[in-house]
Amino acid sequence: MDITVKQLFSDQHFAEDEQITLHGWVKTVRGSKRVGFIELSDGSCFKRAQIVMQSDLPNYEELTKLPISSTIGVTGTVVYTPEAKQPLEIHAESIELEGHSDNDYPLQKKKHTYEYLRTMAHLRPRTNTFYAVFRIRSLAAFAIHQYLQSEDFVYVNTPIITSSDAEGAGEMFRVTTLDMENLPRTEDGKVDDHEDFFKKETNLTVSGQLAVEPFALAFKNVYTFGPTFRAENSHTSRHAAEFWMIEPEMAFADLKDVIVEAEGLLKYVVSYLFDHAMDELQFLNDNVDEHLIERLTKTREEPFAQITYTEAIDLLQKADVDFEVPVYWGLDLESEHERYLSEQVFKKPVFLTDYPKDIKAFYMRVNDDDKTVAAVDLLVPEIGELIGGSQREEREDVLAAKIKELDMPMEEYQWYLDLRKYGETEHSGFGIGFERLLMYVTGMENIRDVIPYPRTPGNAEF
Amino acid sequence: MDITVKQLFSDQHFAEDEQITLHGWVKTVRGSKRVGFIELSDGSCFKRAQIVMQSDLPNYEELTKLPISSTIGVTGTVVYTPEAKQPLEIHAESIELEGHSDNDYPLQKKKHTYEYLRTMAHLRPRTNTFYAVFRIRSLAAFAIHQYLQSEDFVYVNTPIITSSDAEGAGEMFRVTTLDMENLPRTEDGKVDDHEDFFKKETNLTVSGQLAVEPFALAFKNVYTFGPTFRAENSHTSRHAAEFWMIEPEMAFADLKDVIVEAEGLLKYVVSYLFDHAMDELQFLNDNVDEHLIERLTKTREEPFAQITYTEAIDLLQKADVDFEVPVYWGLDLESEHERYLSEQVFKKPVFLTDYPKDIKAFYMRVNDDDKTVAAVDLLVPEIGELIGGSQREEREDVLAAKIKELDMPMEEYQWYLDLRKYGETEHSGFGIGFERLLMYVTGMENIRDVIPYPRTPGNAEF
Repeated sequence: MDITVKQLFSDQHFAEDEQITLHGWVKTVRGSKRVGFIELSDGSCFKRAQIVMQSDLPNYEELTKLPISSTIGVTGTVVYTPEAKQPLEIHAESIELEGHSDNDYPLQKKKHTYEYLRTMAHLRPRTNTFYAVFRIRSLAAFAIHQYLQSEDFVYVNTPIITSSDAEGAGEMFRVTTLDMENLPRTEDGKVDDHEDFFKKETNLTVSGQLAVEPFALAFKNVYTFGPTFRAENSHTSRHAAEFWMIEPEMAFADLKDVIVEAEGLLKYVVSYLFDHAMDELQFLNDNVDEHLIERLTKTREEPFAQITYTEAIDLLQKADVDFEVPVYWGLDLESEHERYLSEQVFKKPVFLTDYPKDIKAFYMRVNDDDKTVAAVDLLVPEIGELIGGSQREEREDVLAAKIKELDMPMEEYQWYLDLRKYGETEHSGFGIGFERLLMYVTGMENIRDVIPYPRTPGNAEF
Repeated sequence: MDITVKQLFSDQHFAEDEQITLHGWVKTVRGSKRVGFIELSDGSCFKRAQIVMQSDLPNYEELTKLPISSTIGVTGTVVYTPEAKQPLEIHAESIELEGHSDNDYPLQKKKHTYEYLRTMAHLRPRTNTFYAVFRIRSLAAFAIHQYLQSEDFVYVNTPIITSSDAEGAGEMFRVTTLDMENLPRTEDGKVDDHEDFFKKETNLTVSGQLAVEPFALAFKNVYTFGPTFRAENSHTSRHAAEFWMIEPEMAFADLKDVIVEAEGLLKYVVSYLFDHAMDELQFLNDNVDEHLIERLTKTREEPFAQITYTEAIDLLQKADVDFEVPVYWGLDLESEHERYLSEQVFKKPVFLTDYPKDIKAFYMRVNDDDKTVAAVDLLVPEIGELIGGSQREEREDVLAAKIKELDMPMEEYQWYLDLRKYGETEHSGFGIGFERLLMYVTGMENIRDVIPYPRTPGNAEF
């Protein structure tokens, strides 16, 4: 019977004389004159099967010299060893070489730097660390879908190619089918965008939020979960040109609802990982970030803190710390301030609410003080800002005045104003950078190491 | 107590004297001197609440004249009417206008054409048809994740921006940050791609398949689910420039496994929709495609058919039909042939296997006859090809010879060959066009009507 390594380590019990077959890749191999051992992975779980082979196997010699990553099929029986470090092993009756591997396999047993492994994005998921990270990435994505669907959120695929610039946030990538060597020109010599595929200039989206709002006003609760792009020439460990965002949006909901949903979602993701990826989390805790499980346990179990921006400024000004950027009311907080609040003051995730309106986006709802907006950021240890959200300005006249004040092209935002014109509705939403969340739940410190094929300035390999 | 319309229609029973509050949008309103009725939607489900208001409400006059889509809060009690068409109604004690709507609301009660509604992608999800379609889109996406995760597939976000052209399939969109009005040039006068963001030419992905294969060789079972792009100037009802694909990939798996997983996945999606979107399916069956539920029931309950390409050619040649494109062995089947097979011959989904190698992609595994490859397409009624898959060529030497034969740049595919060099492993996968699947499960005939904001030549609005 063909089984997987995952089944091998499941509750299923295999009888002493039950013949099973595993197909997998050789991770390590060692052999003496009488007996040899192969660690076998088939990808189905983090654990590997320990294969014991006696020297009377006809191809024993060849097996002990197998290059790492050779593909083999092992037939044998399961022997339980509850006293040993390994709870079970496979006593091989036959081992067949199913696919060769060359001797120059670049991932030999020794530890490689993350930098080196980034140059082989096609092979690094075979290492323990990246196996753990990318399995957690998958599970976290599913947990997010599951939580939101269970709360009756409707998943909306907002467009990747867009002719608007969302919130004027950040630089964008142009998308074009024009022949760059031979650009069509208008009479006055400009590039003729009307000749482009979409008959106008188009870009890659920086956020799905504006596009998803209309759906909240039809379905009440909706969310996006898709790729977004920033053409910023940042060479930091926290910025990538291509990353995924989750953007839930809710009608008949205010800032308090954002806080409830954001905290609920984050706790659910952590719980889901505890239930489905404990082997991976333990490995990362042992090898990457020794505070990982402690931090996540706290995230799951303790209520998050909550203060206003104004209270936060007060705390920062009273702090006995020399911040690089001095603190004043009106400042757009830097990572150092955000981390001080979450790591030193609260030692857990903290929501900051009611930011100065001048440092926040045009669509955020102005508070009665006319100085702040109903915005909220979630700051977490090690990362800083993880989630940003707000109540949206639903008052048609207030929003129109704001668009005018900021000199934004009114006709381009008419559809967005229509949402207020035809059923002014209290509504709110938030955005989560998926990779930041992954850094938080894996302990990895570079965004390039939580993305299968990272895109950063000068790097679009594979 | 605040409740949603979904809760109202759930198993929960509300006592005669229990006061509840609903927030929602006015869908229709009518009133006589003594009594008036409002159909209220809050987006939480397809159903609407029937609000009964007596003329003694202080703002009764105003309420009967409310423009469609006004936002109101209704407080009252639930009255069950099991004998009536409507199983329950709300007897209003007070109704508050929470947000205005203008009188020129473009979605008045009369039926609009799909073409007209496409011009208002921000409002059309409020109509019954598009509410149904986009809720089904969300549920189908989640069902796909749930099925694959339950089968231990790991979700991988393959890159959107890519420097390879995957399989040389179709025209691509260029992604650039170069200043189009002032392009940098190399010494010989060409556009200097080295000055671009990624220091080379990059494009939007046409498929995640090649990029996901390395992950199958680490995790055994993996899948992508993300946007893909084709810059084809097609103006048909079945082509969009931006669409979503699901691409599962499995190690230690052959063509038979593809067929099992593809059929299992499709049946699961249909079952999930039957369990979670019966109101929506019934509406679409009544208003869009009268055979929808019958077709889906059959899809769920009957095993799919399976024949070889060669057998299919034989059937087509014997058919008493004047095909526009004549049939011969070696032909890349047209939609008319595919639909004849699934609609006339088998009257249900049918897998075609073992296509001529010359009409299939370079990475498909060559069969022993050296004429065909281990490929499979799933043809379904109304749509034609819905799924395409294959066993991948895992033999390093055969694949390298193929790349050479097709004059593809060997150095660009070295990483792909590495997957064979370091652990030649039998593996297979398939791709599903998500929008084609949605057309199949909704009965909608134009791909523009199953995408929130469709992108087609000349159209990138919103």
